[in-house]
Amino acid sequence: MDNITRHDAHQNDIDAATGIPDIPAAAHAAIRIIKGDILHTPTPDAFEVCEDGYIIVANGTVQQVTSNLPSEYADLPVSDYSGSLIIPGFNDLHIHAPQYPIAGLGFDYELLPWLERYTFPAEANFADPEITQRWYKRFLNKLWSVGTLRFSAFATLHAGSTLELMRLSQQSGLRPVIGKVNMDRNAPESLIESTDDSLATTQELIEESRELTPDIGFIITPRFVPSTTPELMQGLGELAEHYDLPVQSHLDENLGEIDWVRELHPDIPSYAEVYEHYGLMPEGRTIMAHCVHTSERERALLKARRVYLAHCAQSNMNLTSGIMPVRRDLDYGLNISIASDVGAGHVPDINHHIVQSIEASKMLSMLPEHQGERPLRLPEAFAMATKASGAFFGRVGSFEPGYDFDALVIREDDNPLSLSPQERLERYIYTGDDRSITHRFVAGREIALPFPEV
Amino acid sequence: MDNITRHDAHQNDIDAATGIPDIPAAAHAAIRIIKGDILHTPTPDAFEVCEDGYIIVANGTVQQVTSNLPSEYADLPVSDYSGSLIIPGFNDLHIHAPQYPIAGLGFDYELLPWLERYTFPAEANFADPEITQRWYKRFLNKLWSVGTLRFSAFATLHAGSTLELMRLSQQSGLRPVIGKVNMDRNAPESLIESTDDSLATTQELIEESRELTPDIGFIITPRFVPSTTPELMQGLGELAEHYDLPVQSHLDENLGEIDWVRELHPDIPSYAEVYEHYGLMPEGRTIMAHCVHTSERERALLKARRVYLAHCAQSNMNLTSGIMPVRRDLDYGLNISIASDVGAGHVPDINHHIVQSIEASKMLSMLPEHQGERPLRLPEAFAMATKASGAFFGRVGSFEPGYDFDALVIREDDNPLSLSPQERLERYIYTGDDRSITHRFVAGREIALPFPEV
Repeated sequence: MDNITRHDAHQNDIDAATGIPDIPAAAHAAIRIIKGDILHTPTPDAFEVCEDGYIIVANGTVQQVTSNLPSEYADLPVSDYSGSLIIPGFNDLHIHAPQYPIAGLGFDYELLPWLERYTFPAEANFADPEITQRWYKRFLNKLWSVGTLRFSAFATLHAGSTLELMRLSQQSGLRPVIGKVNMDRNAPESLIESTDDSLATTQELIEESRELTPDIGFIITPRFVPSTTPELMQGLGELAEHYDLPVQSHLDENLGEIDWVRELHPDIPSYAEVYEHYGLMPEGRTIMAHCVHTSERERALLKARRVYLAHCAQSNMNLTSGIMPVRRDLDYGLNISIASDVGAGHVPDINHHIVQSIEASKMLSMLPEHQGERPLRLPEAFAMATKASGAFFGRVGSFEPGYDFDALVIREDDNPLSLSPQERLERYIYTGDDRSITHRFVAGREIALPFPEV
Repeated sequence: MDNITRHDAHQNDIDAATGIPDIPAAAHAAIRIIKGDILHTPTPDAFEVCEDGYIIVANGTVQQVTSNLPSEYADLPVSDYSGSLIIPGFNDLHIHAPQYPIAGLGFDYELLPWLERYTFPAEANFADPEITQRWYKRFLNKLWSVGTLRFSAFATLHAGSTLELMRLSQQSGLRPVIGKVNMDRNAPESLIESTDDSLATTQELIEESRELTPDIGFIITPRFVPSTTPELMQGLGELAEHYDLPVQSHLDENLGEIDWVRELHPDIPSYAEVYEHYGLMPEGRTIMAHCVHTSERERALLKARRVYLAHCAQSNMNLTSGIMPVRRDLDYGLNISIASDVGAGHVPDINHHIVQSIEASKMLSMLPEHQGERPLRLPEAFAMATKASGAFFGRVGSFEPGYDFDALVIREDDNPLSLSPQERLERYIYTGDDRSITHRFVAGREIALPFPEV
């Protein structure tokens, strides 16, 4: 606890880039040097550790990680976080922004009453601009606080409120993609649109947001197959193609849902193929949340289309959906990342979700049908929460040269046993919270608490 | 977040018991009235809620919970926590105090290397008085902060350090029972004693602590069967009987351990019966941690002896031990409480362990052999973390008349949807942390942070 003052003092170093006598200003103006115990996972099998090392960042992009500062940089000021860990920021590929107010509620209920009692009323609230302002600001503050710097969010069906979330995100310095939710069947009165309205407002929003929120991507977001008619899916697929946009939705979360999709689309052989059929699976640009109960046929498709699978272990436990067979799917070559699924996940903290994913995988390894499967190890799960999910946003989630410098500085808490940097990271992942994070960088820029007033 | 100031202001109300004009001081001197949204679980099937109600406490004991303050108390000052929840404090029946420094480390390892690499060195450290002072203070601060007001702790084999933990606990105002760990076989050099030494120092410690730490009970603590010889178990059983002391140990945590016990004690039909055989299962005064893989025969014994089973879901996931079949064992009539098992559990926060127990039980309910079993519901799990575990300490863990007033005041966080008290409690359990707790009472006395200096 005695580290607090020392680390907070670093905040002053950051902008104190003065007194550089003999280097021409232009040459190094956009270069930033960061010092600390650096950890990341270029490959998932182990942490790459550079203790007491330097990250050289130019124009927001990592140039190199090095133990010895090259002499050409010797006179540049250093943001010195010695004694702290520097790790890539977290990326969360599945989160429902309007469900943040009800996260942690109703988990004694089954999925359907949970949706009816909590989720749908919460989402309907976002017709109100005042609620939109207050809660989306709190939501962005919260994600900032726990170190989720990029994410893919479901908003609600309200175009105005969705645009507001994009504007607030643009202001915040965080870099999400955001989608207006589309639903034109099997939804409550307050959350349903006509097919035409749904498509028209989506298109309008895409156009508006391109102009107003240039750093915040739009993502096509059919809620899931049961709540979108074939016409709506078809139209959304066309929008995705026309504007070259990514797509996110839910897939194979629980068995009842899968049966329902089969009834709704008896002519299409699998749930995943419904999305594909309607043009909603653009290659390398699609996020499918859950994927707990995929068939072999679906896995082949998900692999071929290089889909991002968002593993939501906490949500799947809370709603008794099942456990995704992560080891099997990783071995098969699927791209799996770790996501929060707030509000069915109760907290957005990705460090907790890393732990929960490891625990779920240990549980599974104890069942006869998974016996012998290696449970997830920490570096693997960490890579799934940083580099695997970051790839959706470009070169994000690692400190390899050419990657955006998205980073968290983790304060050293008590260090009783001369722990190694990796052990200190382990400790943060298992026991830390927002208070452990002292600094957050997105593409090289330090980001402050977005909305201190709420 | 705007409640912080208002609630912190209450701290001043507590001792401001002045200006009571016409009631004789003696009559009401020890009466305290607490106001707020009161929740507890006299029975596990539902929360008993008294919204905006009063708890009348006399000499540290609950007299009644009431919506209307009886006129005889009308002029007494009220500690007004309106808008906050008032709930029983948490009790943790299984925690290793010296493992707190290494909690959250090494969970990529299996049990044995984990013990060797982290647990045993951590425990050996407590031969050092400086480490004892620093870390046991931090440990007690931490338990205070998360609202664990009573607990049953394993210390280490060091008598001096164990006595120091008891002294610090006495000072803290928390009310644990604490045991010196006994090990005279199958332990590393640094953590083994001779049988005679082990018994002699234990007896000495019992005598000393009775005098020096009158509020802190001693609990006989053989680490587990594999690390205690028959002679040591016999001697400890005799001490338990002679001094009328409770006993704690581990039982049926994982399958390898059970085989080992069978090899060590081929003449005794089950692991549980080894403890019984040596007098280490006093009726209604025994805590057995884990009990993941109990046999029918053992369950009958645990029931007959009214043993406290400490369910450690997080630890059992971290170390891939299994999942305790809680529903089956509750139905059978066993007394199960929710425990942290720090350091194999990574955090001491009992609210997190409530969630983890519910999740584990949901996982189990999805397996074919447990199909149809109702997963744990929140009020049940809450009762297991308050009243079921509190019973070990007497009338503790509920606000029924005659119970010690052990309580936590939980600050209302954001309340977006006019949530009911029960929903706000749910939210705290799932998403809250130490910052949610504004006041802590043990037997009617408010307890401040024990050791602000560490």
